[in-house]
Amino acid sequence: MANGFAEMLGTPYEGPVLRVALLGLGSYATRVANAMQSCTKAKLVGAISGTPEKLKDWQTKYNIPEKNCYSYDTFDQIKNNPDIDAVYVITPNSLHRPFVLRTASAGKHAICEKPMALNAKEGQEMVDACKKANVKFLIGYRMHFEPKTLEIIKQRKEGSFGKILYFNGQSGFTIGDPKQWRLNKALAGGGAMMDIGIYSINGSRYMIGEEPVWVTAQETKTDPVKFKDGVDETILFQLGFPSGAVASCLSTYAMTNLDRFFLDGDKGFAELKPATGYGPIEGRTSLGELNFPHVTHQTVQMDEMASIILENKKPIVPVDGEEGVKDMKIIDGIFKAVKSGKRESLNL
Amino acid sequence: MANGFAEMLGTPYEGPVLRVALLGLGSYATRVANAMQSCTKAKLVGAISGTPEKLKDWQTKYNIPEKNCYSYDTFDQIKNNPDIDAVYVITPNSLHRPFVLRTASAGKHAICEKPMALNAKEGQEMVDACKKANVKFLIGYRMHFEPKTLEIIKQRKEGSFGKILYFNGQSGFTIGDPKQWRLNKALAGGGAMMDIGIYSINGSRYMIGEEPVWVTAQETKTDPVKFKDGVDETILFQLGFPSGAVASCLSTYAMTNLDRFFLDGDKGFAELKPATGYGPIEGRTSLGELNFPHVTHQTVQMDEMASIILENKKPIVPVDGEEGVKDMKIIDGIFKAVKSGKRESLNL
Repeated sequence: MANGFAEMLGTPYEGPVLRVALLGLGSYATRVANAMQSCTKAKLVGAISGTPEKLKDWQTKYNIPEKNCYSYDTFDQIKNNPDIDAVYVITPNSLHRPFVLRTASAGKHAICEKPMALNAKEGQEMVDACKKANVKFLIGYRMHFEPKTLEIIKQRKEGSFGKILYFNGQSGFTIGDPKQWRLNKALAGGGAMMDIGIYSINGSRYMIGEEPVWVTAQETKTDPVKFKDGVDETILFQLGFPSGAVASCLSTYAMTNLDRFFLDGDKGFAELKPATGYGPIEGRTSLGELNFPHVTHQTVQMDEMASIILENKKPIVPVDGEEGVKDMKIIDGIFKAVKSGKRESLNL
Repeated sequence: MANGFAEMLGTPYEGPVLRVALLGLGSYATRVANAMQSCTKAKLVGAISGTPEKLKDWQTKYNIPEKNCYSYDTFDQIKNNPDIDAVYVITPNSLHRPFVLRTASAGKHAICEKPMALNAKEGQEMVDACKKANVKFLIGYRMHFEPKTLEIIKQRKEGSFGKILYFNGQSGFTIGDPKQWRLNKALAGGGAMMDIGIYSINGSRYMIGEEPVWVTAQETKTDPVKFKDGVDETILFQLGFPSGAVASCLSTYAMTNLDRFFLDGDKGFAELKPATGYGPIEGRTSLGELNFPHVTHQTVQMDEMASIILENKKPIVPVDGEEGVKDMKIIDGIFKAVKSGKRESLNL
């Protein structure tokens, strides 16, 4: 969490800087771009978009030189641009794979929003391509650098909660406009699970600190007009871990007042609520309230990712492509278990 | 909730009084006996126990005449006692059925702790016997009369939470002494599910306000020495309701800091935490904090049950034997689903 510390101490940062281009200039990319204005080790220097007006707008807004801007047609020329180190892919899910493959081909490091792909097979292909191209590949995990989340992981490792037995993740919101890409199977690859549910999947793993070995899942759909075939509205899923711990989670696009993580052991508990929203995370454990100041998640994320890419820093919770594939294997398992109605084995 | 109101207004209660004998004088019976000292419509007048010293003790402590005391051998003679209207059976679970059948045979109204029996078949037999004997048969549900719980049910019925979609129940604690009857399959009929898990089962039904049509369940056991064959330590279970609402619940004897109910809809939520403990229930909904004064649950329960038995009062949430059988059918379904690993249909 060394973000800005050097400046605060009056000594300007003089280490290496990761020069980043964002690909897919929607609302989340704008959020990342704004957060990056406060970064020390990462710098927004380029933009890739299918919409020429957006590129113009970003050049002005974020002081991006025109020579660092690309359309989807010209994107592959980025390989000849020595002023860009990494591309952060922030498109609809189905476009993650092709754009990460093109990023790797261009010899640039890739950061990709989650879910990394539409399934584990695609995800593994992306990991393999980046390895082959000798570029780093990270997934846009935000919470892995969030101070209260990391404090809970620390307390859990220290044994403060005793034997860990249970994680409950409630991830969801009521989605608006029925015409958005998130409700389009071809673009999103699913529904709530591919958007918000993945937070509970990933949370189960980093909160419990193990990899699940089985999954069961149940789907319910109360609005089949808004949530078409292959677009999940609400899914409950359960994960079993080698120690005997279990996770029980909710993923939904149809409810409000959610966003809670709860970890329980035989000696203590931890709660995050909200657990994954963009605003301040609130948390408490059996040892007391967690009182860390709020940090803009994406600012810390991008600074930390710069250290991971440029200095081989090892994050407390991994954020690499292999990590993304594990989440995809669980998503594959959830969809399989919904269909089979049975417990499905996981092999992470 | 008219308990004591008449006295508060200075007019002594002059209506009918239910004269109750408690059967099985353990720690919970003591709690009920103490709570009944504040009852208006129910009065503790008798006691049945297998331990002569306990009967002596209770005669002194609760001013019970010796002629209203019975051993398990002499219990059937209660039919000749005109001063006792009802027997409240508070024994280990496996003894509920035989003692309720004997209560009915003696022509006395029966109140029975939950779970009413070891399975739905036994429960139905008890319901049938009481019907045949023309006596009332109630299950010892406490929360059905708890003001904050009832306020949430009222708000839900008024539509304050919108379309109800999800209930999450977390029921459990870390159980102590491994030699107690609650961990003995022959006496308890199971483990956590037959003791604390039933609160989430029952809560799912009264919070959502529907009867479930399917169940899935997953068991995990981390301490097979303490929790022997047939004694469940931790079970996750999910219930599906006709509207599409789902419940996701935890039942455990191995974790601390639980006891939370959470109901969610597309417009609002309700939370009870603690939800079912003996002390003050705390609750809030999307409309605000619930600020009712704490009432001793068993005092209200026994006064309300007196009105149900003596005046045919209809409670907001049913507490009769048929209600108990529904819970037992779900428990049967949970144990079946744990074994089959599949979704099991429920026919309540």
